[in-house]
Amino acid sequence: MHIDDLETPSVLIDLHRMEANIRRMQDRCNALGLAFRPHIKTHKIPDIAKMQLEAGAIGIACQKVSEAEVFASAGITDIQIPYNIVGAKKTARLADLALYNRVSVSADHPVTVSGLSDAAKANDITIRVLVDLATEIQRTGAPVDDVIELAKKIDEDEYLYFAGLMVYPSNASIRPAVQEVIQRLHEAGIGVETVSGGGYGASYQADQLPELTEIRVGTYVFNDMNSVSKGWATLDDCAMRIMATVVSRPSPDRMILDSGSKTLAADRVNDTHGYILEYPEARIYQLSEEHAHVDISQCGERPVIGERVSVIPVHTCVVTNLHNQIYGVRGEDIEVEWKVAARGLVW
Amino acid sequence: MHIDDLETPSVLIDLHRMEANIRRMQDRCNALGLAFRPHIKTHKIPDIAKMQLEAGAIGIACQKVSEAEVFASAGITDIQIPYNIVGAKKTARLADLALYNRVSVSADHPVTVSGLSDAAKANDITIRVLVDLATEIQRTGAPVDDVIELAKKIDEDEYLYFAGLMVYPSNASIRPAVQEVIQRLHEAGIGVETVSGGGYGASYQADQLPELTEIRVGTYVFNDMNSVSKGWATLDDCAMRIMATVVSRPSPDRMILDSGSKTLAADRVNDTHGYILEYPEARIYQLSEEHAHVDISQCGERPVIGERVSVIPVHTCVVTNLHNQIYGVRGEDIEVEWKVAARGLVW
Repeated sequence: MHIDDLETPSVLIDLHRMEANIRRMQDRCNALGLAFRPHIKTHKIPDIAKMQLEAGAIGIACQKVSEAEVFASAGITDIQIPYNIVGAKKTARLADLALYNRVSVSADHPVTVSGLSDAAKANDITIRVLVDLATEIQRTGAPVDDVIELAKKIDEDEYLYFAGLMVYPSNASIRPAVQEVIQRLHEAGIGVETVSGGGYGASYQADQLPELTEIRVGTYVFNDMNSVSKGWATLDDCAMRIMATVVSRPSPDRMILDSGSKTLAADRVNDTHGYILEYPEARIYQLSEEHAHVDISQCGERPVIGERVSVIPVHTCVVTNLHNQIYGVRGEDIEVEWKVAARGLVW
Repeated sequence: MHIDDLETPSVLIDLHRMEANIRRMQDRCNALGLAFRPHIKTHKIPDIAKMQLEAGAIGIACQKVSEAEVFASAGITDIQIPYNIVGAKKTARLADLALYNRVSVSADHPVTVSGLSDAAKANDITIRVLVDLATEIQRTGAPVDDVIELAKKIDEDEYLYFAGLMVYPSNASIRPAVQEVIQRLHEAGIGVETVSGGGYGASYQADQLPELTEIRVGTYVFNDMNSVSKGWATLDDCAMRIMATVVSRPSPDRMILDSGSKTLAADRVNDTHGYILEYPEARIYQLSEEHAHVDISQCGERPVIGERVSVIPVHTCVVTNLHNQIYGVRGEDIEVEWKVAARGLVW
């Protein structure tokens, strides 16, 4: 099928670029001597995770038990959930999953650790737990003293295995804390097997944190205008494009596309909601739910109603999450239609 | 089933409040002598549209042909698409839909009108077309002179029926243009059967635009913090709540919920991404994809890990669109699980 046979708005993935992105990140991690664990939040598609594993990734990361179940069902067995899994039903399903898969999970509080222990005990299995060390972004995570206590609690628990540290994001600023934790746990006779870092920047700043043993990155697989604005990717590395149609030309200086915030998501960078490949001077200055409002005053040629354009989105992870399917294309041929299998899940 | 049996994050709809919202808006439109056409973008669920029709609505509005197909399949026959439908495949499906349903569509350009005419002719049917009059928001829409020409073009077309004007939003600022169009078309011997207004504010400002014959409103059915901030609804009128779990308490002043931008959407009003019913002083100051970062420094009691809270979202229409299903609850009992049937569609 040709891309012209698709309706708009549709999400296209340039397979050649995606394959190059997968290879490039794996090569970088290999060169750094780091295990690589792609985060599937960006694509939520088992077939793409398998390509990442075939390229050399040691396993995947995902953010929910339900997502892990989708990927485990597809035959992926090494799954990390760098998230506090709270509540008896969720921990029970996590324990189920850990029965046949190498599952690890993070925790930042004794209550959360106890919940994991109860679920593991009920299933008579061992759950691998990473302790979440607080970083500068002040999201989840415990401070150093608490991390030490949590590691000891996990280490002493018959049904839990202390798998190491989880940090997000991982860069130089967290190094003193990581070093202190490793040193103090060493003194307590507890080894830190894994230091799992995360964030796109982690792959560029890994030399600042040599204690890292693995990194989790998601966005690199498609890239987006956020990646470009941070200098982590070029426009040529961006594999995702939203194919949209010009549905209105209300004035010489404006056009309206059929891709609003329910298609492109609400994110904005450098004062635009996306980069239009065919009209680089155009600026998507506003989104309604189903319309993109575009300033074309700086464009030489001006688009006409019915014309199709390609938009590189600002944040690819939240775009995938809006769509039921995305299309893998090579040139102008559609090679594969993927269901976004793990989107919209609750667990 | 009890709401405690659901996992989090889940989207709950308080049925009592939703029913009251449906009645209140219909009563207001009846009192104003306006036909009411709820916009289904807010819920995307045929069962809810049927409740709106049973309350007295004359039909529905939706934004895509694919959405119209879902609602037509559910037996809803009067459907307006206040959107420029562009491209031969889409107009062909629109014509198919118009064969057995009372379908109207808007247009703001001769090219768009010609596309509709071609599709109607190919199916030997008549398509009802509203001309989209440009308003202050500068989205789609033609200026007055162009509206006159478009109306004439439609009126002269054997396969199109000039159904009237579409304006969004509808308030006093557009009245001079509406009056001029009606007057000039009257002089040309063309009647303006419908003046279809839209936007939540339309129901409060309808007296400023007495030429209106119908209005399209979506958000009123659930309401949200945007509605509250505009004074169009009270907290008590908000029927949608996201049930979330406290998954981390990294400091005395912060908590983290399991509902990020992939659950609550990215919208923000009054410096928060949602209102937490149990902790009114809490402020959701930031969202990651799967985490809400909440400032609880102003709260008297502080939540504990594992506790569930109820979040009224900022913009309900984009929240529904993120979820595969939502739950209708009465008190703490789950009365119905609805599939969000028309979400994520392309056409």
